[in-house]
Parts: sequence; C-alpha cells; structure tokens
Amino acid sequence: MTISSVLVLNGPNLNLLGQREPEVYGSATLDDHVSSLRIEAQKHNISVDHLQSNSESELVTAIHNARNTHDAIIINAGAFTHYSWAIHDALRAFEGRVVEVHLSNPSAREDFRHVSVLATLVNGTISGFGGYGYQLALNSLIELSQ
Amino acid sequence: MTISSVLVLNGPNLNLLGQREPEVYGSATLDDHVSSLRIEAQKHNISVDHLQSNSESELVTAIHNARNTHDAIIINAGAFTHYSWAIHDALRAFEGRVVEVHLSNPSAREDFRHVSVLATLVNGTISGFGGYGYQLALNSLIELSQ
Amino acid sequence: MTISSVLVLNGPNLNLLGQREPEVYGSATLDDHVSSLRIEAQKHNISVDHLQSNSESELVTAIHNARNTHDAIIINAGAFTHYSWAIHDALRAFEGRVVEVHLSNPSAREDFRHVSVLATLVNGTISGFGGYGYQLALNSLIELSQ
Amino acid sequence: MTISSVLVLNGPNLNLLGQREPEVYGSATLDDHVSSLRIEAQKHNISVDHLQSNSESELVTAIHNARNTHDAIIINAGAFTHYSWAIHDALRAFEGRVVEVHLSNPSAREDFRHVSVLATLVNGTISGFGGYGYQLALNSLIELSQ
Amino acid sequence: MTISSVLVLNGPNLNLLGQREPEVYGSATLDDHVSSLRIEAQKHNISVDHLQSNSESELVTAIHNARNTHDAIIINAGAFTHYSWAIHDALRAFEGRVVEVHLSNPSAREDFRHVSVLATLVNGTISGFGGYGYQLALNSLIELSQ
Amino acid sequence: MTISSVLVLNGPNLNLLGQREPEVYGSATLDDHVSSLRIEAQKHNISVDHLQSNSESELVTAIHNARNTHDAIIINAGAFTHYSWAIHDALRAFEGRVVEVHLSNPSAREDFRHVSVLATLVNGTISGFGGYGYQLALNSLIELSQ
Amino acid sequence: MTISSVLVLNGPNLNLLGQREPEVYGSATLDDHVSSLRIEAQKHNISVDHLQSNSESELVTAIHNARNTHDAIIINAGAFTHYSWAIHDALRAFEGRVVEVHLSNPSAREDFRHVSVLATLVNGTISGFGGYGYQLALNSLIELSQ
Amino acid sequence: MTISSVLVLNGPNLNLLGQREPEVYGSATLDDHVSSLRIEAQKHNISVDHLQSNSESELVTAIHNARNTHDAIIINAGAFTHYSWAIHDALRAFEGRVVEVHLSNPSAREDFRHVSVLATLVNGTISGFGGYGYQLALNSLIELSQ
Amino acid sequence: MTISSVLVLNGPNLNLLGQREPEVYGSATLDDHVSSLRIEAQKHNISVDHLQSNSESELVTAIHNARNTHDAIIINAGAFTHYSWAIHDALRAFEGRVVEVHLSNPSAREDFRHVSVLATLVNGTISGFGGYGYQLALNSLIELSQ
Amino acid sequence: MTISSVLVLNGPNLNLLGQREPEVYGSATLDDHVSSLRIEAQKHNISVDHLQSNSESELVTAIHNARNTHDAIIINAGAFTHYSWAIHDALRAFEGRVVEVHLSNPSAREDFRHVSVLATLVNGTISGFGGYGYQLALNSLIELSQ
Amino acid sequence: MTISSVLVLNGPNLNLLGQREPEVYGSATLDDHVSSLRIEAQKHNISVDHLQSNSESELVTAIHNARNTHDAIIINAGAFTHYSWAIHDALRAFEGRVVEVHLSNPSAREDFRHVSVLATLVNGTISGFGGYGYQLALNSLIELSQ
Amino acid sequence: MTISSVLVLNGPNLNLLGQREPEVYGSATLDDHVSSLRIEAQKHNISVDHLQSNSESELVTAIHNARNTHDAIIINAGAFTHYSWAIHDALRAFEGRVVEVHLSNPSAREDFRHVSVLATLVNGTISGFGGYGYQLALNSLIELSQ
Repeated sequence: MTISSVLVLNGPNLNLLGQREPEVYGSATLDDHVSSLRIEAQKHNISVDHLQSNSESELVTAIHNARNTHDAIIINAGAFTHYSWAIHDALRAFEGRVVEVHLSNPSAREDFRHVSVLATLVNGTISGFGGYGYQLALNSLIELSQ
Repeated sequence: MTISSVLVLNGPNLNLLGQREPEVYGSATLDDHVSSLRIEAQKHNISVDHLQSNSESELVTAIHNARNTHDAIIINAGAFTHYSWAIHDALRAFEGRVVEVHLSNPSAREDFRHVSVLATLVNGTISGFGGYGYQLALNSLIELSQ
Repeated sequence: MTISSVLVLNGPNLNLLGQREPEVYGSATLDDHVSSLRIEAQKHNISVDHLQSNSESELVTAIHNARNTHDAIIINAGAFTHYSWAIHDALRAFEGRVVEVHLSNPSAREDFRHVSVLATLVNGTISGFGGYGYQLALNSLIELSQ
Repeated sequence: MTISSVLVLNGPNLNLLGQREPEVYGSATLDDHVSSLRIEAQKHNISVDHLQSNSESELVTAIHNARNTHDAIIINAGAFTHYSWAIHDALRAFEGRVVEVHLSNPSAREDFRHVSVLATLVNGTISGFGGYGYQLALNSLIELSQ
Repeated sequence: MTISSVLVLNGPNLNLLGQREPEVYGSATLDDHVSSLRIEAQKHNISVDHLQSNSESELVTAIHNARNTHDAIIINAGAFTHYSWAIHDALRAFEGRVVEVHLSNPSAREDFRHVSVLATLVNGTISGFGGYGYQLALNSLIELSQ
Repeated sequence: MTISSVLVLNGPNLNLLGQREPEVYGSATLDDHVSSLRIEAQKHNISVDHLQSNSESELVTAIHNARNTHDAIIINAGAFTHYSWAIHDALRAFEGRVVEVHLSNPSAREDFRHVSVLATLVNGTISGFGGYGYQLALNSLIELSQ
Repeated sequence: MTISSVLVLNGPNLNLLGQREPEVYGSATLDDHVSSLRIEAQKHNISVDHLQSNSESELVTAIHNARNTHDAIIINAGAFTHYSWAIHDALRAFEGRVVEVHLSNPSAREDFRHVSVLATLVNGTISGFGGYGYQLALNSLIELSQ
Repeated sequence: MTISSVLVLNGPNLNLLGQREPEVYGSATLDDHVSSLRIEAQKHNISVDHLQSNSESELVTAIHNARNTHDAIIINAGAFTHYSWAIHDALRAFEGRVVEVHLSNPSAREDFRHVSVLATLVNGTISGFGGYGYQLALNSLIELSQ
Repeated sequence: MTISSVLVLNGPNLNLLGQREPEVYGSATLDDHVSSLRIEAQKHNISVDHLQSNSESELVTAIHNARNTHDAIIINAGAFTHYSWAIHDALRAFEGRVVEVHLSNPSAREDFRHVSVLATLVNGTISGFGGYGYQLALNSLIELSQ
Repeated sequence: MTISSVLVLNGPNLNLLGQREPEVYGSATLDDHVSSLRIEAQKHNISVDHLQSNSESELVTAIHNARNTHDAIIINAGAFTHYSWAIHDALRAFEGRVVEVHLSNPSAREDFRHVSVLATLVNGTISGFGGYGYQLALNSLIELSQ
Repeated sequence: MTISSVLVLNGPNLNLLGQREPEVYGSATLDDHVSSLRIEAQKHNISVDHLQSNSESELVTAIHNARNTHDAIIINAGAFTHYSWAIHDALRAFEGRVVEVHLSNPSAREDFRHVSVLATLVNGTISGFGGYGYQLALNSLIELSQ
Repeated sequence: MTISSVLVLNGPNLNLLGQREPEVYGSATLDDHVSSLRIEAQKHNISVDHLQSNSESELVTAIHNARNTHDAIIINAGAFTHYSWAIHDALRAFEGRVVEVHLSNPSAREDFRHVSVLATLVNGTISGFGGYGYQLALNSLIELSQ
C-alpha cells in the first residue's frame, strides 16, 4: 500500500508550541514543524493536511472524514492522549496506518503522562525528538508502506 | 407519570454505525435504529427526538434543554460512558427517567469499557442487543411510567 | 435460530420477592413475574420453564440439563452473580443464548454488586426494570433469534 | 422487644469442632457448646433451635424460615463468613436481631479471614472466646432487647 | 504584581446553578454570584470577565487568550476538575495566578470528586462556601499580589 | 489463671459518651457504663480501674504500668484503634489477657473504622453492644481464666 | 505411610468432561479418566473411590468422611478452586496427603483461574496434562509415601 | 446563626512558622497571622481564641471545650491533617461550623499531604494563601452565618 | 509427536540441592535426581541432557540451542521463575513441549514465589513432589506425545 | 561541620527495653545502651543528651529545641516511625544531621514496620544491630562531619 | 555535539530475529537490520558498533565501556526493558544520548511489556516499526545533535 | 562466633564509583573504600576478600563459595537489591551473618529503590553513609559476634 496523503492531527494546547514551556518543547512553532514536514513529504509526492484543535469532537470528526480521504494519520493528541476514549474509538474505525508522536518523552514527566489510551491502536510511537518526530513518523509510514 | 416525549442521545463514533466493526455492532445504521424506534414509539403516541454528537458539550447542553421538553432520555454515550463526568452531572440535573443502552456487551470487551460513570444515575441499563436495545429501552420507559 | 423453549433461573433469596426490601424490589412476587412472562411467551409459542433455587448446585445442574432441552436461558442469579464461578463455568457449556436480568440497578447499590462474574458469558444484560426485565429479556431473545 | 426464641446457625466444618485444630478451637464439641447455651437460655425462658450445615442453601433457607419463627439469630457462618453474599442477602431480609460469633480471632489468622461479608448487617460481633461466645451472644441479645 | 483584570471561568453544568440540587449548591444563580463578584471587584478597580461553558475546548481557548489579557484566573471547572488534562495543560501555560473554587466541599461527596487534576497547578483552592467562594478567591488574589 | 484486677482503658472522645451522636452510641455516659461494670465485677471479687484519656501516651504508659498491677485489660481505644501502632506495641508487651470493645459495629460505619491495628494482639473482640460490651468483656475474661 | 485407599474428588461441571470445550479439556469423559486411574491403582493394590459433585457441601462432607476411610485425596475442585474457603477448611482438617489436579493450565487462562484458595494446603499440584494428571497424582502419592 | 466567638487551632510544628521552610510558608510568624486575624475579627465584634499545640490530645480537648464556648473553629491541623482520626472524631462532636486552612497548597507537595482525614467533616477548606487564609476563613464563617 | 530427547534445565541455587534448606527440599542432590530421571528415560529410549546454571543468559542460550536438538524441555528455573522475562521470551521461541517443575509448593511459601512469569507458556506444571517431579514431568511428556 | 553535641531520641515503648520481647530486642536496657554511647562519645568530646518519651508531642518539641542546641539527632522513633508525620515535619525543620536507628530489622517483621515515614528526611539509617546501632550512628555522624 | 560513533545494543532473544514469531517481528535477521543501519550511518560518517547479548552483565559492561568510546547508544534491551534496573543504572552513568527502540509496539502486547524501566532515562523512544526503527533512531540522533 | 574472614560483594555499576553521579555517591572509588576497610579489618585480624561484579550469576556463585570460606558477607548489591531473587535465595543458603550496605539513602531516591528483596534475609542494614558504610558494617559484624 503506497502512502499518498497523510493527515497530521495535533491536539489541545499544541497551538502554543514555541511559547509554552520552551525548555521542554523547544522554541519552534507548530507551523514551523508542519512546514518542515511538508517539504519532506513533497520529496515523496505525499500530500499533508494538518489540523490543530483544542476540541475532542473536531479531532474525532477529522478522523472520521479521513476514512475516505487519507492513507495515514500522524497524531499528537496532546493531553487527550491520556483520557480520550472517544479518539481511541475513532482511530479504531480508521483503516489506514496511524503513528503516534510525542514531542517530549512522556515517561520522564508526570505520572498521568505515562499512560496512552491510544497506544494499543497505533502502528507505532515516536517520542522525545521534538518537532522532528513528525518527519520520523512520515519516514516510518513510507517505510511501512513498502 | 405518562411518557409522551423521549430524547434519544448517541455519543461519539456512533454515526459510523453500520460501517465500523460490523462484527461487533452489526450492519444497520444509526438511522435505521432510530427509524425502527420511531415506528414503535408512534404506536404509543410518544414523540422521539434524536441527537447524535461527537461533542461532549453538545450532549450536555441537549440534556439541559431536555429538562423542559422531554419526559425521558435514552442514552448511548459511546466512549463518553467511561469518563464523562460532565454528562454524569448533566443527567443528575434531569428529573425524568433515564435508560442507558449499549449495543454490545461492554463486560465482554476491553477493561476500560467495564466501567460506566453514568450507571449510578440511570434507572436501568440494557446492553448487548444491538439497535434493538433502543426499543427495549422505550418499552421499559413505558412500563416504568405505568 | 428460532427460540421455542426458555429456561428462567432465579437464584438465592429471590423467593422472598414481594416481602424483602419492597422499596428496592417492588411488591410483586416472583410468581407474579413468571406468570406475566408466560402470558407474553405464549403469544410467541414459546414455552417457559422456571426454577428458583437457593442452591448453587441446583442451578448448575439445571443449566447442564438445559443443554438438551432449552434454546435459551434467562438468569437472575441473585447474590451468586457476584461470586459463583461454578455457574459461570456451567453457562460456558451452554450453547444457546443467555440473558442476565437484575431487578434493581446493581451499579447504584453496594460495591460488591458492581461485579458480575457471569457478564463476560452472556449475550446481554437488562437491569433496573424490576420484574418487567424478564419480559424485556424474552423480547430480546426473540429479536436476537430473527 | 423481648427475645423468646433464638436460632443458632453454624456453617461448614463446624461439625468437626473438638476434632479439628484443637489448638485453635479447643476440644469441646459443637454439641457441648449448644448444650451450655440451652442451659443458659432456659434461665431466661428463651428457646434455642440449632442447625449446623455445610450447605450454603440450607443456611439461606433456615434464615428465610426464621423470619416467622424466631426473634433473633446467632450465626457462626464458618468459611461462608468470607464470601457468601447469598447468606448476606438472606440476613438482610431477616428483621430480628443478628449476632455474629467467631470461636477464634479472625484478625490474628490468615488474610482471607479478615473480611466478613456479613459484618455490615449484624447488630454486633463476638470473636475469640471459643464456644463461650455463643453465651455472650445470647446475653447481648437479652440486653439489646431490654 | 498588581491585579487589574481577572477572568472567571465556570465549567459544565454550572449554568444550571440555582436550579440543580439546590440543597447542595443553593438557590442563587451563576449570574447572581458573578454580579456580587463584580461589585466587590469594582471597589478594587479590577475588571472581571466571565465565561461559563460546557465545552472543554472553549475553556482551553479562553485560558490561552487570557495569557495576553488577564492577570489572574478564578476557575470552577465543574466536572472537568476531575479529568480534563487539557485544561491542566492550558493552565500550565498561563503565567498569572490561578485560584480554584468549588461551591460545595468535594471531599464530602462522591469519590470521583476527591481528585482534582488541576490542583497541582493552582496557587490555592477555596471550597465549600457556595458562590461566596468567588469573592474569597478575588480577595486572595488581591492579597497575593501585594 | 484467675482474674482479680482489670484495667479498663477508653481512648479519645469517649469522655463525650452520652452527648455525642447518641443515635450511634446511646445516651448513657461513660461513668454509667463503668459503674455497671464495677457492680458486675464486685460479684466476682474483681477490682476495676478505669482510665479515659485523649492522649495516646497516657494510654501507652497506663498499659506499661498495668504490667505489674493488673491481670487483664479491656480496651476501647476509640479512634486510636485505627492507627496507633504505639498502643499496639504497648499491648504486645502486656502479658495478661486483652479484650477489645467497640460500642458500635465498626464494619457498618466509615471505611477507616474497618481496620483495627490492635486486632492481631487481643484475645477477642466484642463490638456493637454499646456499653454492655464492657460487661461481656468482663464475662469473657472470667470465662477465659477458668 | 503406605497409601492403600485414595478418594478422588471432582467439582462442578466436570461431569460435562468430553462434551464441554473439548479444545481445552479433550474428548475423554470423566469416567474414562477414573477407569484409567483405577487400572493403574490396582497395580499398586490401592483402592480408588470417586465422587463428582456440583455441590460444595457434598464435597465438604466427602472430605470429612474421608478422615476415617482414606489415606489420601486427589482433588480437582473445578471452579470451587478459586473461591471455596469451605473446601479449604475441610482439607485443613484432613490429615492425609492431598494432591490438586487441573486438567488445563489455569495460568494460561482467565485471571480468575490464576488463584487457588486450596493451594496453600495441598502437598502438590499437577496441572496441564488433561486426565492423565490423575495418574501422575496417584504416582506422586505413592512416591511421597515411600 | 451569628458568629460571635471563634476558636483558632494550629497543630504541630506551626509554632516554627517564619523560621521553617520560609520559601514554602513565608516569613511571618504565627503570632503575626493571629494578630491580623484579631484586628479583622474586632471589626465584626467577633472574639478570637487561639491555641497552637504539638499535642494531639490538647487539640482534641480544646475542641471538646469549644462545644460550650465557641460558635466556630478555624483549624490548621498541620501534619495531623493526614492521620489524626482522633481529631476527626472530636470535630464530629462539635456542632458549630468548622473551616480547614492550609498555608500552602497540599496538592502540590508530597503524596501524604494529598489526603485530609478531616475534610469530610468541615464546612469548607482554604489552602494556598499563607496566613491570609485565616482571614478568608473568618470571612467565610461570617458569610455562612448570614 | 514422539519424544526422543529432553533437555532438563535447572536454575540458580539448585546446585546446592541436598545442602540448602533440607527441611524444604530434601537431602538428595541434583545429581541424584537427574540420575533417577535418566534411568526412567532410558526405559523409553529418551535421551536426557542436563544443565544447571546460576546464569540467566546461559539458560536463555541453552533454550535457543534446544530449538534444533531437543523435543522437549523440563525446566525448574528456581528464582528466575519469578522475574526472568528473558527466559519467558526464550521459551516462547521454543516449539517443543515444556513442563515446569518446582520441588516444593510455591503457593505455600513466600508471596514472591506465588507468581511464575513462565506459567503462561508451559504445557503444564508439577510442584510439591521434590525431585520425583522430574520423573512425573517426563511421564507427562511421554503421555502428551501419544 | 564538627559534631559536638548529639540529641538521642527514643520513642514509645523503648523504655521497656530489656523486658519486652528479649528474643527480638535483647536484654540490655535503654540506659545500658545510652551509657555505652556516652562512653564512646566522650572519646570524641561529644556531649550526648537523651530523651525517651511515649509522647509524640514531647518528641516534636524536643526536636524543635534541638534546633538551637544540638548538631545532630539520633532517633529511634519506635512505632512513630510508621505513622508520625508530625515528627517527620519536625525533623524537616532541623538543619543538622539526623540518623535513624532501629534495634531489629524492620523488613524481617510485620508489614506495617516496612514503611518509615521518616526515611526520606534522614541522612542515613542503621537497623538490625540492637543497642550497638546507637554507637554506629554516632560513628557515622563523626565520619559525615569530617 | 556532533555524533560520530554509535553503539547499538540488542538484548536477549534478539539473535533469533527472523526465526521467532515472524508474524510479530518480521523475517529479516538482526544482521540484516544492522547492515542497513551501517549503510545509512556511513552516509553521515558515523561509525556503528553492534553487540547482541543474552547477558545482562555484558550489556552493562558494554555501556560502561561506551562512556569513553561512543557518542550515543541505540538500545533495544528486549525483555530486560521490563526489569533490568542494572541496565537502567548503567545508562544513567552514560553521558551521551540514548534512544530506545522496540521492533513491535509493546503497548499492544502483554501487560508486562507496557512498562519500560529504561524509559525515564532515554532521550526518546521509537517503537512499532520493525528493524527500520534503528534507522529512525540514527536519524533522530543526528537531528538531536544539530 | 568470632569473625575472621569477611567477603565483601559489590553489584552492578559500583565499579563506576567516583565517576558516576558524584553528587550522590562521592568521588572516592570502590578501591578506596575497600582499602580503608582492609586497614580497619587488619586491626581485628579479619581478612577481607572483595568481588565487584556486574553479573548476577557471579555474585550468586561467590555467595555459594563463601559457605565454606567466609564467616560473614557484606553486600551492596546495587540495582540487584531491587529484583534479584536469585541472590536472595543464595543468601538464604549462607549460614554466616550478612550485612546490607547502601552508599546513599534509597528511601530518599526513586520508588524502585525503596524495596529490597534481600532485606528479609540480612542481619542488618546500613544506608546513607557512603563508603564509610562498609566500615560500619564490619564493626557491626564484630559486635554481633561477641
């Protein structure tokens, strides 16, 4: 299965990237990371759509829509990672590949970040490499599709 | 207390019914189930309003509005069943009867589905009978109101 | 699979129905509920056999016998719901459908009533609708068999 | 409420009293203890009926019958103390007084003996005084009824 | 740091204040409480903005916006108090002071209300004093800023 | 071993007996209960000393002193029952018999009252019979010493 | 101590052996297994008595009776393995040797089968070898008695 | 109920205030805080009595005495907050209002400080505002009494 | 599948057999047990290889090698039973049969011995019969292979 | 920092040393141990003050006073080790070194002795060496101060 | 910090890669993966050393040696991931960067694989992408060093 | 029993002492500590053998060998302290005295360091005094042997 279109989803508070806790998340903005990702994706003729939302239902609905429009999802669900069973169920209904990205290493932070309710559903997880994680995720999707 | 108007609420991902995991949930759509329910309800002169939403706040607000407009609620909160204390609190403020419906049997699935944060507030629960559960719920409401 | 014969099993203390804690369980007796059920069943040409027993082994043996004689079981195992792995194992060996009924809503009562050791084995559960739950169970069996 | 008739119930394995683990339970038999109790009871014009049974259902049924025939129950449920929710439910339906007796001190023995599923329902508990506990239980019933 | 502008945030179901469970929450409405708070605030030349929302994402976004417009937040997150890590993360990114208010005493209610996922991030908590808690929160913010 | 002198120890808040929560503890005072106990004890030529203290250290020291002066201890440690390992250790060093008394039935009250840190050390426990429990304790000590 | 008589006890649902879940338990019946065992036992001049019962009290009573008539017990308590403290207590009072047999490997099945309340009392356990386990148990008893 | 006399109780180690961990608790002494409180109280014609004690029994006894002399208690029980069921029981017997104060925010500190054994009994809690919390407590008592 | 070669693996400290805790493990040495096993195996034309090692990696490597050379493994992993997931994973990769042996009954000893991280992977377990357990394991392998 | 004055604190029941459980604690009295310690201390020109108290508040107050008078504390808090957060907080406010001593090895005794609420605050712990532990503690303090 | 030399460590059972559970891990061997990695590394002038070992101590020692010879470690500790605190401590002492790789997604497998005792120490984790994960790890190291 | 020969065992990563985390463990090397210990030991005519190993099996084997050659063991098992039941079992088979040493205070560090699987077997524990702990251990062994 060749990957030609990827949906990148970012959850709550990730719009603050670059402003909030730069010692943890770095100073680049989310737009910076998505731009870098798009450049990389173009090399492989992959289109990238991006949605950042603080709203669980918008993310759920975006996953539903992706069922007909995208081959894969790269998701950094932010805090929803730890409790949104609604996103879990939405991802279950998505038949393409899914990669979970975390900018920091959740295991090295507070206890509530050690559990991902999405982890059982994804193909793989990449965490701890900042915004570069999105590119690693893209690379992994390309590799998995070969 | 006679029941004359029922609000049916369906939570996140239930709009995918018929497409998602048909081996668990069957191939009928949510519209199919609501249509069957409406036919049954008309026999008893009961009006049925229906809302499916992936948004917790829309469900909360719908419950608030039902305080003045509906005698009873039939709710299948989907994944919200397992963590939405906001819906729990909204149902607490609803004075009519409430029946909880699950299409499949949550006890036979993953651990996180074994807990319902709504269960202490409802009059009764019906699970495991697919879309027919909505009709059983309606029947139970009619019986309870006699 | 058409349903033509149903075994109704009631566990310990349910013989006291109508006398014990009427504020929880109502004032109708178990015989009242079974009579109503039989009337409903006759409309569908379904025979109903009933056993109430305070004895775990009698219930286990009744389930064994039903393997050759009944198409479905409706079971309200009373307190055995919460610890009888022997009944659990007996139900596992029964190949017809099984519906679990609880008169009250166990989730709204003491902690020990929140766990059903039978729940993973049944097709569905109906709780909180008093003796009417037996009729809902019958209806669900008829529906499931269509 | 004057006490005039008491039912003494002893659960599984108590028929071995005097033979089994005498270092824990002493060498007197259950009959010895009941005889002593009867002598004491006669002084107060109280009749004593006694049932020892290894069968949970016999104990449940005996409690049911006592609803019409006895003012109080003294129960040493043996191992059933720790898991028989059926006896718990039967005692709930008994409207007279109930005193729980343990020959030894359960808290000083294995972990499983530290929990009594009957304890929330009884008026009081007496443990650690061997067969004399039955007499203390009788005295407490007389006192409570004054 | 002088406080000149405060954002008051109220979470799901608090719009029902005065109608829902008055024995717990009193009969004053949320508007009543905010009006009283505004009168008090004017004495100190503090502007008060108020948002009640049943939507987690609206609350998250309001906290984001407050980063540039308000010196402090008074938050009664309602049921979100107990599970919204998204609001937790949003508050982490707010650099002004934050005070948590609960109308009733959560420790004296159901178990799920004993945990606040926001508590580690706030400057202080005031609970149990009904709508007057908002004024106490304002007073504490004035004091903390001196 | 004949019992000729008994120390009765009552822990914190038991001085309020008769005033505090009479629906749980009755209206008799602690003095009333000790007087009744003394009358009973005199019949058996047993001296009774009594100490009520809100101080853990006074109770510990009283147990130490009793090592040379008393044959047995009847102790109602009140709230200390649930956490005072210091009293636990003191009782371990007492070589006479010890009976634990509770006026009410701790198992039927709040969770923290379900655990007794003294229970592994005592000869027996009597709970649920109000002030009459002290007399039952005395009787049990007499019986145990025969 | 030479073994000359062994009691074989089989608990609830084992009468279905050969019919129920043959993929787990094989297709031989319980009678087949006992016959094979008797043949093996005769070679060693050991008599074998067998009782299968779905009734906890019959098993308890059989253990009591064995105190005077049998040198050893081989027990497959079925589901009672996991909760029957009554059988636990009965085995405690049996002074001969006891071997626990499980046809399948409980550790590889559901969680509730991982705990045996009998395990602390038996001389040894044999699990996972189907009906042949009874013969291994017999051999182990012969070996232990040498 | 008008408040005219308040007892302020401070538990162990609070006498070190101003010396111990000033980065957590500030540099004002306990006397400073009580003085400020008295000034505020005089404006409302409320008398303030104060006791700081490292002794659990002194605090228990002070609460007992307050039953006849004070309308309300403001308590900062220090470390006793987390384990003194004796103070819990004493507060239960106090019929006036009780407000719990913590200088720092216990939820942001070590785990053992997250549990208050007093919290179920108090009218409200104020934490995180240093010594100003006592004044907020006083204000809340005045408000509650109107 | 006929068994013609068996690898016997013994884990750490089993080289001390006969010297260490003889009251638990008996006085025969490991060599004694292996010799007896070899004699039994020869009757069935089965070759027996044996390795005792205190080294987890040697045991892992031995299991790897056995993939090509042995039909079955009898393993007494000693303390590794309770925590060596490396041996667990090695056994997963072995396609022949595996029987777990314990000399004593782990359930009757310390808590840490109640868990076997190997148990889910083995065909069966034999525990409590000392060195004779190896012969029972061999017999079970022969039986299983028929 | 040179050590010139050490406060030795002993908690509840340690005054019984030499009398209570000599098989655990040995037959030397507390005075014997302190005398030996003083002799050792004199060699290093270190003064030793000693307090044994059954009272938590006396120990707390002694630690407070030591803030100005002693360089280090050696503490054997007895049973308070396991629950006195008041002593924990007092030790936090002491700026000198603190060594915890236990006469026996708490890990080899009852479960409640496995937790020390003081352990996170002390410089080091010495347990299992009887009264000689005090001298080891002194030596460690001398070493740490070099 | 430029990366010029990387140590790749593979733990127990990874030598079986390509043979063991190919449905989980794929059919490529470990050598295949390391070869691909070396090709990629050469493009960046990075040297790659590789050690696979079933021995915890060999891995610990290799990490020690890498302190002077390598800039970064890529580690797939296999089963040691879940319990080897020795490797955890060794990694703590390594000052270069560390990336953890898992071939499959541990969160989607057995419970014991959900915990990594190494996770708090690594810079990042990559899981679920088979042998390609090593290349992603290399890429992430290059990125992190820029 | 006089001590004339002591085996000092140091577990994984302790070879890095002086280099790794000097703020926790100090800058002296392990050789420095052993040299100091040897000097002290010579004064008492005690020979000291030392083994540092990163290998669990080497430590197990060293303990086995010590059974015939050494009177006592001083062990700092490093990370093995927290999970090596193999070392636990080896120490059980050692009949001389054993003292456990930790350089830092494990209770003040990460959670996994709070549990010692060796603690129930040792005579005593010394923690928090750096390398001087070995000398204290030696002194304690000399004292214990008098």
